[in-house]
Amino acid sequence: MNYKIAVVPGDGIGPEVIDQALRVLDRIGEKYNHNFEYTKVLAGGAAIDATGGCLPQETIDICKASDAVLLGAVGGWKWDTLPGDERPERALLGLRKELGLFANLRPAILFDELSEACPLKPEITAGGLDIVVVRELTGGIYFGEKGFKDTDLGPAAYDVEQYAEEEVRRIAIVAFDMAMKRNKKVTSVDKANVLESSRLWRRVVAEVAKDYPEVELNNLYVDNTAMQMILNPKQFDVIVTSNIFGDILSDEASQITGSIGMLPSASLAQGNFGMYEPVHGSAPDIAGQNKANPMATILSAAMMLRYTFGLSNEADAIEAAVKKVLADGYRTPDLMANGGKEMGTKEAGDLILAAL
Amino acid sequence: MNYKIAVVPGDGIGPEVIDQALRVLDRIGEKYNHNFEYTKVLAGGAAIDATGGCLPQETIDICKASDAVLLGAVGGWKWDTLPGDERPERALLGLRKELGLFANLRPAILFDELSEACPLKPEITAGGLDIVVVRELTGGIYFGEKGFKDTDLGPAAYDVEQYAEEEVRRIAIVAFDMAMKRNKKVTSVDKANVLESSRLWRRVVAEVAKDYPEVELNNLYVDNTAMQMILNPKQFDVIVTSNIFGDILSDEASQITGSIGMLPSASLAQGNFGMYEPVHGSAPDIAGQNKANPMATILSAAMMLRYTFGLSNEADAIEAAVKKVLADGYRTPDLMANGGKEMGTKEAGDLILAAL
Ligand SMILES: [Mg+2]
Ligand SMILES: [Mg+2]
Repeated sequence: MNYKIAVVPGDGIGPEVIDQALRVLDRIGEKYNHNFEYTKVLAGGAAIDATGGCLPQETIDICKASDAVLLGAVGGWKWDTLPGDERPERALLGLRKELGLFANLRPAILFDELSEACPLKPEITAGGLDIVVVRELTGGIYFGEKGFKDTDLGPAAYDVEQYAEEEVRRIAIVAFDMAMKRNKKVTSVDKANVLESSRLWRRVVAEVAKDYPEVELNNLYVDNTAMQMILNPKQFDVIVTSNIFGDILSDEASQITGSIGMLPSASLAQGNFGMYEPVHGSAPDIAGQNKANPMATILSAAMMLRYTFGLSNEADAIEAAVKKVLADGYRTPDLMANGGKEMGTKEAGDLILAAL
Repeated sequence: MNYKIAVVPGDGIGPEVIDQALRVLDRIGEKYNHNFEYTKVLAGGAAIDATGGCLPQETIDICKASDAVLLGAVGGWKWDTLPGDERPERALLGLRKELGLFANLRPAILFDELSEACPLKPEITAGGLDIVVVRELTGGIYFGEKGFKDTDLGPAAYDVEQYAEEEVRRIAIVAFDMAMKRNKKVTSVDKANVLESSRLWRRVVAEVAKDYPEVELNNLYVDNTAMQMILNPKQFDVIVTSNIFGDILSDEASQITGSIGMLPSASLAQGNFGMYEPVHGSAPDIAGQNKANPMATILSAAMMLRYTFGLSNEADAIEAAVKKVLADGYRTPDLMANGGKEMGTKEAGDLILAAL
């Protein structure tokens, strides 16, 4: 089959890690008889340099006309002096909005082979961790009304956390669907003891849960979740939560894996459309030196195969190849704290291709 | 000198741990020639049983007429069937409001003697941890306008995060004053890249910082802070933040110490008035069995001496006595995971008195 992928190499190490991901996709295409058709587009600093704006209309159009988007990373020192709303990172917000990406999926996986890098004691993580945080991405306080007002206490600023039932319902469905393909366990995180929007959240999640009688639903407060993530992270499988709580908890969860250079992410729209990108940034300090770890981008490509194209065997094959390379003792520089056989960006691609 | 203390034993293990704290205060009084005058008052479940309401007016009046409040714990299964706004825990919100307690101080200390209980690997916490989270307690989204509205997306619920400059200023002053007595380092936590209220927060904190030229100020985003707390908690000394972020981060910080039964807290008003209580709850399952760890309450009493009464030598003496008992190998049941000589609630009090 033919799959159309808009590819955004972006800035810093973005182009290098994307190159390796495309090599892996090509090999998958040969092996399983698919045709992946790439259209490279500009976004972020690269787009600013070429066109003056971080997200050209052409990029948006090509992304919309594709089946999925694969993105490297955007941003860098070079554009740090620009005002906030002209910076490369704005391209991500723009893409989320234009493409209707309302669900952010952040798997936090502790690879057995990298467990020395985990900051938690081994007895807490024994047997590995495999959590996915499903974060609502286009609603809540980050996009609510904001401004200034005069109050009894003098000048004040405000931001509104707001959720419509429909926004909660669609993200809850993403989480429960995912749970059905995993361990049938959803933890919904809110602050329903104090927030009205959280009480609505909890009520709608409970309604959605009725359509998934096999899935176990737990409700936890956000402060308790921040603790449980450290105390007993193995209790979690799928976590679903609001934009701001998901922002905090997905970062906390990624940190307990100890290897942020390994973590992929997906941002999904209604239907199967999605944008896939590594969690790490553009790391301009090591750009162009064959030092970047391409595995998070390669694993993002695997997520694309699984979630947008429904190709789970192919996704499994990529994930197994990455694990094989780690098990064989190869490490990119970011993973060398506990030793290993060092590999560069391109060599990582070579080894994963060989393992496929 | 004479110090008037309103004492709220509360529910569950509250009365037992309070008893030991009062014994310790009495000994300090003898030794340093102070007179601590206690008035016991009702709040929480005990107040519901006796008067029908969780916070009698008499309790409020006596607290207001005192120099400080020392509280055990409130709540328990017995009252779990009451509607939310009649539960024992409401007494805490009521006391905060009535007493004007706008600053919550939560020290997160990793005692060397208990470092086996810490969930983080030893190399991360080597040398110990001593963080204090200063959380704004009476403003922000927990107390902002909330309700329901109809939107383009259908029925929605909302909560308003709002901060007046004055609210930020007074909590920032608490944090910087504290930093001057500690390591002259403040980390202010916000989400200024997206929230207007956070931008106001950051601006006012920077203004306050000008009055403390010796103090180093860092600004961190809340999601990054949740990561750094695990990756490198030793970078933190005083953290100052909003009500909701402080709720999440103080719980995360307490968890990395591994010994929540050891953690005291203070809630301060303008001036020196404060309410002091352990972080742990009322633990009805072990109430009345001489199993509760009274050390968090005893350390809360030490905080009271330090912050409300300005008696730092006396506070130091209590903290040193608690450490001595731990160093001698004594552990309450909650701390026995890695062995030790078991002590009950009363024996813990005996040993701390002996060490004074
Ligand atoms: Mg984040
Ligand atoms: Mg809390």
